[in-house]
Amino acid sequence: MDNETVETAEVAASEGSRRSRGAGGGASARRAARVQTGSGQKLAYIRRALPVYEVLDEAGAALIEANADIVLEEIGIEFRDDPEALAMWRAAGADVSGERVRFPKGLCRELLKTAPRSFVQHARNPENSVEIGGNATVFAPVYGPPFVRDLDGVRRYATIEDFRNFVKLAYMAPAIHHSGGTVCEPVDVAVNKRHLDMVHAHMTLSDKPFMGSVTAPERAEDTVAMCRILFGEEFVDQNCVVINLINANSPMTFDGTMLGALKVYARANQACIVTPFILAGAMSPVTVAGTLTQVLAEVLAGAAFTQLCRPGAPVVFGTFASSISMQSGAPTFGTPEPSLVSFGAAQLARRLGLPFRTGGSLCASKVPDAQAAYESANTLNSTLMAGTNFVLHAAGWLEGGLAACYEKFVMDCDQLGAMQALMRGVDLSENGQAMSAIREVGPGSHYLGCQHTQDNFQTAFYRSTIADNNSFEQWSAEGGQRAESRANTLCRRWLDAYAPPPLDPAIAEALAAFVARRKESEPDAFA
Amino acid sequence: MDNETVETAEVAASEGSRRSRGAGGGASARRAARVQTGSGQKLAYIRRALPVYEVLDEAGAALIEANADIVLEEIGIEFRDDPEALAMWRAAGADVSGERVRFPKGLCRELLKTAPRSFVQHARNPENSVEIGGNATVFAPVYGPPFVRDLDGVRRYATIEDFRNFVKLAYMAPAIHHSGGTVCEPVDVAVNKRHLDMVHAHMTLSDKPFMGSVTAPERAEDTVAMCRILFGEEFVDQNCVVINLINANSPMTFDGTMLGALKVYARANQACIVTPFILAGAMSPVTVAGTLTQVLAEVLAGAAFTQLCRPGAPVVFGTFASSISMQSGAPTFGTPEPSLVSFGAAQLARRLGLPFRTGGSLCASKVPDAQAAYESANTLNSTLMAGTNFVLHAAGWLEGGLAACYEKFVMDCDQLGAMQALMRGVDLSENGQAMSAIREVGPGSHYLGCQHTQDNFQTAFYRSTIADNNSFEQWSAEGGQRAESRANTLCRRWLDAYAPPPLDPAIAEALAAFVARRKESEPDAFA
Repeated sequence: MDNETVETAEVAASEGSRRSRGAGGGASARRAARVQTGSGQKLAYIRRALPVYEVLDEAGAALIEANADIVLEEIGIEFRDDPEALAMWRAAGADVSGERVRFPKGLCRELLKTAPRSFVQHARNPENSVEIGGNATVFAPVYGPPFVRDLDGVRRYATIEDFRNFVKLAYMAPAIHHSGGTVCEPVDVAVNKRHLDMVHAHMTLSDKPFMGSVTAPERAEDTVAMCRILFGEEFVDQNCVVINLINANSPMTFDGTMLGALKVYARANQACIVTPFILAGAMSPVTVAGTLTQVLAEVLAGAAFTQLCRPGAPVVFGTFASSISMQSGAPTFGTPEPSLVSFGAAQLARRLGLPFRTGGSLCASKVPDAQAAYESANTLNSTLMAGTNFVLHAAGWLEGGLAACYEKFVMDCDQLGAMQALMRGVDLSENGQAMSAIREVGPGSHYLGCQHTQDNFQTAFYRSTIADNNSFEQWSAEGGQRAESRANTLCRRWLDAYAPPPLDPAIAEALAAFVARRKESEPDAFA
Repeated sequence: MDNETVETAEVAASEGSRRSRGAGGGASARRAARVQTGSGQKLAYIRRALPVYEVLDEAGAALIEANADIVLEEIGIEFRDDPEALAMWRAAGADVSGERVRFPKGLCRELLKTAPRSFVQHARNPENSVEIGGNATVFAPVYGPPFVRDLDGVRRYATIEDFRNFVKLAYMAPAIHHSGGTVCEPVDVAVNKRHLDMVHAHMTLSDKPFMGSVTAPERAEDTVAMCRILFGEEFVDQNCVVINLINANSPMTFDGTMLGALKVYARANQACIVTPFILAGAMSPVTVAGTLTQVLAEVLAGAAFTQLCRPGAPVVFGTFASSISMQSGAPTFGTPEPSLVSFGAAQLARRLGLPFRTGGSLCASKVPDAQAAYESANTLNSTLMAGTNFVLHAAGWLEGGLAACYEKFVMDCDQLGAMQALMRGVDLSENGQAMSAIREVGPGSHYLGCQHTQDNFQTAFYRSTIADNNSFEQWSAEGGQRAESRANTLCRRWLDAYAPPPLDPAIAEALAAFVARRKESEPDAFA
């Protein structure tokens, strides 16, 4: 079964399950509402009922595409420390000079014709499988922080215990659809072995889909080997079971480490998110159009390379857009220019026919304060409006991604639930129109007690798990807590209530044995 | 000169001045960037270069319009305590029974054909005049709070000194285009006299456009009389110089107080914002479509009534959308359903051909914390994306509108500046495309020192006045402040730096004399 077939069959299945969970009313809607209380139940990934928001007109988008073609043809992209990649490009008809690859006009787009427009990433619990592409949106936690801000408000290096905690929290969070990858960097585990503990945690503590290791080709191989234990060898070869973050080393460079991991995953038919990691002004021009041009050129080259590795391998158009303070050089988040990049890149991805990743709940603040929230909300709103399919860093990101914050994780999850409700759009059913209520109540009265209100009481509005909507007096009497204090309480409650999803003991044993064997095979390395 | 002529001439003038201030590059762009540092200079109101976001398709919008027609025809709207209004409706062909007015299909839309699609509200400083309608967006401060959260973190009743402070802050804030109205309720001034002090403060402490008193017809008359002193009698009759908030008493009711003020302003050719004040679930059905239906019906009736008072009088389609917690009955903000109402109502206003008001920086939080910021950012993002023309409550709103918060005012202003930058859209000029930079830098290098970056250094990115983007170490060394502490410092600096705009001494004297005379004419009333 090729990817296209898998895609079609599975998308249809997802559609079906979504319909049965729809928010239109009745018992299923009440169930959907209950899970919003944050009780550890889950929501299916998002099927947007709302349109996407576009900032470029046809001429603007075509101009950026033409400029990206010029970059590919005249400037080219470097593929470093990977002679095999250069040979593959030469064989495909590119002009290779040293490590610089220049692409005849149209070559990358031609190669990308075999990439699926949308695909399913399977979870070991089939109810948690997600579509990536089309009108689907999937939320995944923060990726990469070496530090945590813990539940005692201490900022310190992250440990494997923190890692496991964030996997548990993502499993408990109703509006997180994906377990993510390096939810934090477990610096207490040897560098050459921590990928084993990380992948093992995702596989055993959660049953949501997850991401693989990309820090070395052999770690990617370990990830695929563990996937084969969990899902079966045949299934892994024919289906996407792990998605992987392949960053371009912008500007216009892919390094050997990322290329090595990309080759492993693409050849194993697993998904790569090819992502120019951009602090605009440093890794790309200081303008939105210039940044979009470079992003598109880098993605075209990197994504096309996945198809040289294995035609049909799933690949995502990724972008990570930030800008820098032109005074201090520090990265900034939640500002207007990266939002414009996200909107524009999403549009370019749709025109290219690839699923799209950007955004999340990004901020530069060191604490979960108003700055963190303004910036995160700005990023998340543009991420959703842009029509993003895969949202990494959707929860827990603090301090420019240097720290994973427990309290912010839980606050962000509440916002994700709100976004998921927003994306359902306007219910225009007879119940939604509510003409019976307007007739029943009439001028000068109120709707609190009317039949229609009673009937829709449970599902009418999104219920925040964090917001305090009480009067000042009541709020004061209850201790006058700030949002992050309430988040702290809820986070501790989630961790206390956590129980692992069931896993076949034979598989659990095989995974543990694999990890133990691989750990014994070489000495610890800490750099 | 009728409104249509005024509109056309003045819009052209605004366009011209905007172009000369455009952010495309050069000296004017550098000036624009400097004002973002919050130094008390100002930005012209927004001309959106980005499209609007719509959540209803043609069939959905038409369905809601048809339902609103049914409400108007079969249920009707009450016009209470105003026999004159009932007589006017009867004369216009409506079916009046008691205080209930039922409207033959199409009557309200027919009457609204004389209302301008867009109009200019003049400020005493012509540079600060604003267009309301079309692709313009105008930010005005919070309206109505009886309490303040002051710069010492104390929550207490508002005073006239607070009122004057917020007028000064709105004058200083670069991205606030309007002085607003009841920026807080000065409860230390007699109820029957405080409108005089409020209007006087707007007229003398600021030279931005402002709002008038609506709490009694005679207070509206005082406002118009003061406008005639400030602008000249003839000018006021022919131009909009004050805009006024006329709330419907939802569901489906206008009360005598609001109708009295509406009649004064419309007959004086001044603008009314007819706004159903909705806590959905209490004043409207619990559904988005039902709320939109009722909002449209109420606005159609109220806005059409302005045209009965004076054909051509400027009128704005207003909506204030919130929902209530179905558990406690408390109002909630920044949640998905009110965002959908804002998007939908903006669309209905465009279809009707009226300028649109909604949104702001709304929140339920009692402190300027993460809850306040998440909720405000969600509201503001949807407000802007919806294509709102007049944004009341754009800064300073806290605690469901019960308190005006100094720190949040300054934090919100920073967000407004970011939104204004966002609305400029993508610069696709040759400089914006930045191909020279991409060619100069090439693979594997960086853009920090390249010529293009140097040339665009000042204007490249929006500069936040509040965000701290430094490292954790530097932030800690500088005291580890939260966002609201930085806002506190900035707010004090603005108030210290405030100097009033020049005003013709003869006019100042005449205004003071009018206020004194009117204050002496009756005893103080405190309820």
